[in-house]
Amino acid sequence: MTAGVPHVAVIGAGAAAHAELVMAEELGRELATRGAVVVCGGLGGVMEAVCRGAREAGGRTIGILPGDDRGHANPYVDVAVATGLGDARNLLVVRTADVVVAVGGELGTLSEIAFALLLGRPVVGISTWELSRPGRAGDDILRVATAREAAEAAVAQATLRSTTSE
Amino acid sequence: MTAGVPHVAVIGAGAAAHAELVMAEELGRELATRGAVVVCGGLGGVMEAVCRGAREAGGRTIGILPGDDRGHANPYVDVAVATGLGDARNLLVVRTADVVVAVGGELGTLSEIAFALLLGRPVVGISTWELSRPGRAGDDILRVATAREAAEAAVAQATLRSTTSE
Amino acid sequence: MTAGVPHVAVIGAGAAAHAELVMAEELGRELATRGAVVVCGGLGGVMEAVCRGAREAGGRTIGILPGDDRGHANPYVDVAVATGLGDARNLLVVRTADVVVAVGGELGTLSEIAFALLLGRPVVGISTWELSRPGRAGDDILRVATAREAAEAAVAQATLRSTTSE
Amino acid sequence: MTAGVPHVAVIGAGAAAHAELVMAEELGRELATRGAVVVCGGLGGVMEAVCRGAREAGGRTIGILPGDDRGHANPYVDVAVATGLGDARNLLVVRTADVVVAVGGELGTLSEIAFALLLGRPVVGISTWELSRPGRAGDDILRVATAREAAEAAVAQATLRSTTSE
Repeated sequence: MTAGVPHVAVIGAGAAAHAELVMAEELGRELATRGAVVVCGGLGGVMEAVCRGAREAGGRTIGILPGDDRGHANPYVDVAVATGLGDARNLLVVRTADVVVAVGGELGTLSEIAFALLLGRPVVGISTWELSRPGRAGDDILRVATAREAAEAAVAQATLRSTTSE
Repeated sequence: MTAGVPHVAVIGAGAAAHAELVMAEELGRELATRGAVVVCGGLGGVMEAVCRGAREAGGRTIGILPGDDRGHANPYVDVAVATGLGDARNLLVVRTADVVVAVGGELGTLSEIAFALLLGRPVVGISTWELSRPGRAGDDILRVATAREAAEAAVAQATLRSTTSE
Repeated sequence: MTAGVPHVAVIGAGAAAHAELVMAEELGRELATRGAVVVCGGLGGVMEAVCRGAREAGGRTIGILPGDDRGHANPYVDVAVATGLGDARNLLVVRTADVVVAVGGELGTLSEIAFALLLGRPVVGISTWELSRPGRAGDDILRVATAREAAEAAVAQATLRSTTSE
Repeated sequence: MTAGVPHVAVIGAGAAAHAELVMAEELGRELATRGAVVVCGGLGGVMEAVCRGAREAGGRTIGILPGDDRGHANPYVDVAVATGLGDARNLLVVRTADVVVAVGGELGTLSEIAFALLLGRPVVGISTWELSRPGRAGDDILRVATAREAAEAAVAQATLRSTTSE
């Protein structure tokens, strides 16, 4: 059952600006409305906001925690996994999703974008990192301006990925 | 929400004897009936049987996979996490649960029992490993004979653990 | 170069009895004398004693640490790796070695024995855990009484393993 | 002993351009000459070139491998650790070092730069990724043009870090 449902990781800072939290909550609602499961790091800030939005719209949320205690998940996490792996849990957030959406973000978010690109997960970005290398312009992040655009792009990419991999 | 609900890891072989599969399926039903979430390694054998039983009784199941692809979970896994960590995922199965129930089991199961004891998770066992050290008789595994006894003991331990840790 | 040299993991408690520390130190010397590299968890107790013995005899020692800081290795660790993975580092100790020798041991040691058996690494034991399953007598741990016997058995197994895998 | 010696992680592509391999080999020599231990991912390309250079100059090299088999390390790795963790081993390369030097690099290198910045390890870069966020110019990568400059900067940073953390 889990295979056919789009899973979208939403990544962003634990200590985020108000505008990012509003954006993340709206993104949660937009993803849930489109039938996507939200995957995140399970803690506060953007992670909590996106889960709150998703749950308001009747959606499901997965929180993959860095610590040992499932109870540290934010209250809008539906299913929490306690990894005890510290920052290495960032990889699991990315692996468990079909697509990643970055909302703003600090260095933890940067590490998740990097792993998403490394593992071949499409990345959608709202006001997030830009990456470049000498001799190559731009990166492979699909940049959008609104939560609705991000949700539409993420679900489209997840569906495409699920179709082509079968 | 996830904090207050008992999470029970059920561990056992991917290639298990028929009697173990029957036992695991019944255990899944008994756990679901008591409101517990089943956590497992997400693959076949005992893992699939316990998920099938839990889902039949309307319960929820979490599969924590060794590989990169969420799609490799057995069809009765409700929420799958792709770790890409190989056997190290065994720790995450244990950490995510309040209590562990071992049904038979080979060496992977032994590693999960060992981590459960190390992390302080109570272990309930049905026809599983026995551990001893020179100068000390027995181990801390609570041995039971039936799926119903295992489910009752596991949920009681999970509830006790959740109460005393607050 | 690293491939042809026997690597022996020595596992045991961080808080060990005096007799175990004496045994571990002698084991370190015996392993170093036979040209083996000692792999361990890098901290105190049996881990420190075996490293001290190995270094006294001119041998090399690798410490694979649970934490973030290489500086927490015991002073007899030659090469320290900071994993930040907590108890999951126990798997890396086992994987990096050809053979595992358990000296006494608590629950962490039990988890390493379990992973060694799971990964197919031979296990030599001195006064350590005994494992059994219903219907099967005994386990695959080769039990010895002295540090010299342990070192001889470990190096023989490591050499055998290295020969047959090529 | 390991605590006082500068450990420098050198990161770069497994399939790298000739100029990068030449640069990495020279960097290995320059680091070894300054008494630094080289830490890397243990495989080919930039990883092999930097190890070869370090060993030519009498230095020591640590290879932290993604797979299960220590024997897969390149022949210039002095001490190999088999993690079995796949790409998650990238974090261990960074954690084990005081400073990171990136030579060119693809997406794996990007993930290591991200983790280095996240974990507070200084990053020195030669022709590598540039990172920026809306509203903030530049990143914290210290950019240099030659292997000698990279080695000087890395060892200076490692020494500074070791001094201030005591």
